[in-house]
Amino acid sequence: MDTNAPAHDVDAELNRLNEEMVRMNLTPTWHYYSELVSNIPVPSYRAYLWKAGLLDFVMERAGRLVDLARGGERRSFEVVNPDLRHLHGTTHTIGAALQLVKPGEIAPSHRHLASAIRFPVKGTAYTAVNGEKLYMEERDLILTPTWTWHEHGNESGAPIIWIDALDYPFNKLMQVSFFDHYPDGMHPNTKPLDYTANWVGLARPTWERYDEDIPLVNYKWADTYKSLQRYKDRDGSPYDGVLLEYKSPFNDGPVLPTLSCYAQLLRPGEHTRAHRHTSSQVYYVLEGSGHSVIAGERFDWSKGDFFMLPPWALHEHVNGAKGEALFFSIGDRPILDAFKMYREEAYTENGGRQRVERTFQPLPTPRG
Amino acid sequence: MDTNAPAHDVDAELNRLNEEMVRMNLTPTWHYYSELVSNIPVPSYRAYLWKAGLLDFVMERAGRLVDLARGGERRSFEVVNPDLRHLHGTTHTIGAALQLVKPGEIAPSHRHLASAIRFPVKGTAYTAVNGEKLYMEERDLILTPTWTWHEHGNESGAPIIWIDALDYPFNKLMQVSFFDHYPDGMHPNTKPLDYTANWVGLARPTWERYDEDIPLVNYKWADTYKSLQRYKDRDGSPYDGVLLEYKSPFNDGPVLPTLSCYAQLLRPGEHTRAHRHTSSQVYYVLEGSGHSVIAGERFDWSKGDFFMLPPWALHEHVNGAKGEALFFSIGDRPILDAFKMYREEAYTENGGRQRVERTFQPLPTPRG
Amino acid sequence: MDTNAPAHDVDAELNRLNEEMVRMNLTPTWHYYSELVSNIPVPSYRAYLWKAGLLDFVMERAGRLVDLARGGERRSFEVVNPDLRHLHGTTHTIGAALQLVKPGEIAPSHRHLASAIRFPVKGTAYTAVNGEKLYMEERDLILTPTWTWHEHGNESGAPIIWIDALDYPFNKLMQVSFFDHYPDGMHPNTKPLDYTANWVGLARPTWERYDEDIPLVNYKWADTYKSLQRYKDRDGSPYDGVLLEYKSPFNDGPVLPTLSCYAQLLRPGEHTRAHRHTSSQVYYVLEGSGHSVIAGERFDWSKGDFFMLPPWALHEHVNGAKGEALFFSIGDRPILDAFKMYREEAYTENGGRQRVERTFQPLPTPRG
Amino acid sequence: MDTNAPAHDVDAELNRLNEEMVRMNLTPTWHYYSELVSNIPVPSYRAYLWKAGLLDFVMERAGRLVDLARGGERRSFEVVNPDLRHLHGTTHTIGAALQLVKPGEIAPSHRHLASAIRFPVKGTAYTAVNGEKLYMEERDLILTPTWTWHEHGNESGAPIIWIDALDYPFNKLMQVSFFDHYPDGMHPNTKPLDYTANWVGLARPTWERYDEDIPLVNYKWADTYKSLQRYKDRDGSPYDGVLLEYKSPFNDGPVLPTLSCYAQLLRPGEHTRAHRHTSSQVYYVLEGSGHSVIAGERFDWSKGDFFMLPPWALHEHVNGAKGEALFFSIGDRPILDAFKMYREEAYTENGGRQRVERTFQPLPTPRG
Repeated sequence: MDTNAPAHDVDAELNRLNEEMVRMNLTPTWHYYSELVSNIPVPSYRAYLWKAGLLDFVMERAGRLVDLARGGERRSFEVVNPDLRHLHGTTHTIGAALQLVKPGEIAPSHRHLASAIRFPVKGTAYTAVNGEKLYMEERDLILTPTWTWHEHGNESGAPIIWIDALDYPFNKLMQVSFFDHYPDGMHPNTKPLDYTANWVGLARPTWERYDEDIPLVNYKWADTYKSLQRYKDRDGSPYDGVLLEYKSPFNDGPVLPTLSCYAQLLRPGEHTRAHRHTSSQVYYVLEGSGHSVIAGERFDWSKGDFFMLPPWALHEHVNGAKGEALFFSIGDRPILDAFKMYREEAYTENGGRQRVERTFQPLPTPRG
Repeated sequence: MDTNAPAHDVDAELNRLNEEMVRMNLTPTWHYYSELVSNIPVPSYRAYLWKAGLLDFVMERAGRLVDLARGGERRSFEVVNPDLRHLHGTTHTIGAALQLVKPGEIAPSHRHLASAIRFPVKGTAYTAVNGEKLYMEERDLILTPTWTWHEHGNESGAPIIWIDALDYPFNKLMQVSFFDHYPDGMHPNTKPLDYTANWVGLARPTWERYDEDIPLVNYKWADTYKSLQRYKDRDGSPYDGVLLEYKSPFNDGPVLPTLSCYAQLLRPGEHTRAHRHTSSQVYYVLEGSGHSVIAGERFDWSKGDFFMLPPWALHEHVNGAKGEALFFSIGDRPILDAFKMYREEAYTENGGRQRVERTFQPLPTPRG
Repeated sequence: MDTNAPAHDVDAELNRLNEEMVRMNLTPTWHYYSELVSNIPVPSYRAYLWKAGLLDFVMERAGRLVDLARGGERRSFEVVNPDLRHLHGTTHTIGAALQLVKPGEIAPSHRHLASAIRFPVKGTAYTAVNGEKLYMEERDLILTPTWTWHEHGNESGAPIIWIDALDYPFNKLMQVSFFDHYPDGMHPNTKPLDYTANWVGLARPTWERYDEDIPLVNYKWADTYKSLQRYKDRDGSPYDGVLLEYKSPFNDGPVLPTLSCYAQLLRPGEHTRAHRHTSSQVYYVLEGSGHSVIAGERFDWSKGDFFMLPPWALHEHVNGAKGEALFFSIGDRPILDAFKMYREEAYTENGGRQRVERTFQPLPTPRG
Repeated sequence: MDTNAPAHDVDAELNRLNEEMVRMNLTPTWHYYSELVSNIPVPSYRAYLWKAGLLDFVMERAGRLVDLARGGERRSFEVVNPDLRHLHGTTHTIGAALQLVKPGEIAPSHRHLASAIRFPVKGTAYTAVNGEKLYMEERDLILTPTWTWHEHGNESGAPIIWIDALDYPFNKLMQVSFFDHYPDGMHPNTKPLDYTANWVGLARPTWERYDEDIPLVNYKWADTYKSLQRYKDRDGSPYDGVLLEYKSPFNDGPVLPTLSCYAQLLRPGEHTRAHRHTSSQVYYVLEGSGHSVIAGERFDWSKGDFFMLPPWALHEHVNGAKGEALFFSIGDRPILDAFKMYREEAYTENGGRQRVERTFQPLPTPRG
């Protein structure tokens, strides 16, 4: 610093330099420091909720209008946070959708870098992954790990609707995407029925290697629900009630390298304490009704709704009804864990309960 | 589908639905499929180059005008890709900067979630990380892993300029950031001199555990340059010449969970073949002059320039001069490797050489 | 060598030196090389078989004569290879035993460095491990990993007989052993019923950590037998038929760091091909009758017999009967795998079948 | 138990049963429990020491009498614990030897399952491992991992003597051994000079994979000795002084899966405190003189002596002289660590110093 120059002249010159630098594609750290690293996360988006009625309305029309034979690759739609339209993201890392497949329809084999999970909410169908056919019943969870060939088919007499959740928004942020159609339309079926289901038992064949990096487990809802019931009378998490994470049978880790999935049970009357974490989460309400308070805003939910949680937003859940409330949810914590970026913090004021400052107004369900 | 309806009516109704859905915060997959997953990466930004003259000009002014004592946290500036201003990013994951510390200056202790590396290009100083003082000489590489306390000081008689590279753009994309000042200004110095340097030798003390998750290695340039020379007469990479990666002494992995660093030597006259990969890279020219062709565009570089490479851009390097060309570079491949998202592809047409379609015009150096 | 000395003088002098060196506690490598490292394994012991009748005879007497209250720590006996008496080993690494616990008896808590498994062959009881009570039914498999507190109790109205298998011979070879009685006789029961069984489901609690390094899985026979049946019509191993390995639910590895356990089904008429490996194995015949050929010797087995296999002995199994043959077996392959010492080799001559050179003559069952 | 029978009859009958069972190849646990698992380790062998004079005397004769060309595979001899002759073991897991190779001699390529290290104590030579020639100077440490082809040659004008240490006793205990001669006598030299030395630097080539599982590091004594000096004025271990472990550059682990190697410096006058551990150790005295107290017995050592430590023996070292004492040593801790069998215990009585109960009397050096 030229110590002879008056300070106001220095300031003026510095201001000029700051402006000039932006035109030079340089960022003066001294001026923008808090934009580079903030003291705590400042998410670019807020929580949102989609009502079952709206989703049903759209799905009914999609069922009528979208003809897979006429070139629609998929009859599905993403629930997209209004602040994340550029990513088509439900959160900044996760895209969740509902998909409808009618009896007799098949979707040809393809693969993509994006990792995916499926979770039927109504009906049955199969997904074939790398040549293994996985029959999905309601609320089963199945996986299509990165770059695995997969196709779907509905051999039943009734339509199926399932949840798709993919990490394509994360891939978009990372600026990476690959996609391929299977050369001859349909990948051949090369595995015996229940190939993986048999394998992942606690006694395993010694004469063959399981040939997928990520096991293609069909997480049956019957088993998951039994586990939820077993923990129903135990304490559970003060912040989440009975929150179970689906696990890889090979390493006690998340189901996919980028995504973890959860089944959650809130007991009648349960009102959890608020906390926040650096992961984002997409929730689907399987049963019950109640509300969640997210960053001071009340979101009323009931069966068939989707809602989502941004990073570092305080949240608590309330099951106001007399029956169980059940959520299926998808989170991105594995991405954060990979780099020690996961953090969690309990809300300690006010007995762990937020003050409700406003109530979320969902879009009205259009009239058919 | 109502099979009695004429197709054009269906199309019209579908189009109306598509439009309506956007207002409902839903994305019709059938309409936007290629936006969700593209066949190959479609980066949102292009390569860019900053000339040494411009950087020197700005640094000279910053040296005069920015007074650390008057509240400038850091006398540094980021080289920011014009397409990535919202991230202040050199690439979408990496922010690189030049920092100037004058004799006698110190920068107080702080820590942030962002991981960082330092690489002095002129002068000497120390960085203290979690209580260990690391003396950096020209072209040494040192690390400040996530959430480590660190501070800098220049005890020499001459200014020091170093490169900072951080993963804060990645953190911003992940919507996570934490920052803390050390309570009492300066973290105490708790480690003997050369604590890590002694530890990482091939014979290590048995009576104490090294107490950092990520070893605070001071990668001395003298050693790195010797390694470059040793491989000078070996084949090297057809795409990169003698490209060495700095490694963790604990696990043969990258220096940081999100960032890898490289020293690169192009032999006189070397013209590498083109390839592309899903990682992005920031280059600093240590010695020599030449040019690189990136996605068909020619970038002429010489000592002291910064340039950067977006994901999936074909690139080849040409050392047109009679001496060695040397780069120091920082890449984000570890992020991609963590999720099997790293891919690499050689350019096989035209003998592996791109056709040059245009030449990058750098900003003119302003006159002092 | 003194090249002027006649060779026979040198030989004589060398012979004298060789003898002298032994007295000096030195081994001349030139003389004993093949004793230090042999071309292939030369096991110090042969296969052996114990008939059910003999085991029953002894157990009946032990039941009458051994009074746990009068100081018998355990009412059990090891099946000991006649060549391995110094180790009390069934093989050189594994000690297998039968244990009888009568109604109302308990065995007080203790722990030892040796890792153990239990496998009831008749009756039910519980084993409590580090405060978790595990109820064992017939043919369930449970674990007591190294240094875990454990105790047994028979709350049923009938005696229980189970197989114990421990790695104490390996520990003896390694010259390491530790043993402790629980200070107050019985370790408290600190875990809810089915603590581990619930945990190891595919959906796991997020609010608590499982607190054992090695999960205390109760491998239920009903599940294991179902798995055997599922693979019954598949090829299986040419050397072992349907050979399933019990697996850790945490890492797809063996049940214990030193021991792996197996359930094996030989289909009616199945005659496997011979092979050999560097691991040793202890077999217990659960069902059926037949014979195995081990290193050219025929061993006839039927329900309730024990037999064992030394390292690198060729072996093949024959189920000569019309029903299934079932084995439970314990092997030491994990010890070998830890050091890349596991090898396997198929016998390719004579269609993979050994010539039977002799038949093993078991001890006669004494008359009660 | 027949509760009507008098106790002495039961005892007599039980005694008869116990005897009978031994003949049936059964071990009554109730009678032999403490032989199966002891409360603490009860090693089968004691410490021992070989004087340099004796070793020199034998080596001089071996040099004269053993002619590699006449069929002596190796001109080396093992130092064998008198209690471990059946294993030819220095300890129960480690065999250490001295080997002499005269100018111009070569030893043809072979490989064995046993893992080995070499440590020249006088002279220079090379060992080639899997095609890489490693030039050993005095006190360098080099490795021949399991099943690697290796050969030796002395291209210098003077004889070389080196220490060999192998895990063949452990292999013998595990009943596994394999050995092969290289088909054509000498494995070709396929690696550039300093292939591994260059690789293991902190900046490594990106265009090639290092092609050995275990890096063939040549641990140069000059570097090791520098490290010892750096820690000379730091506290060091209360039990071992400055005890450095040689480390794998790939994973901070021991140099071999079964063996760890150490360089140790005792400062003038240093008298360490006693402790014991479950690993065994072989020491070679590089410099100085002093004594160690092992399990109450005093062993006086000086330059060129070998001595060894059995498991769980209390030991302390005394450098009574005015100069540094230096040991090179080999231990088997990695075997124990693999199974959580490593334990360590400080001796807390008497200020951590054992009472000396006797003094070891080495064999007299024969007169040439």
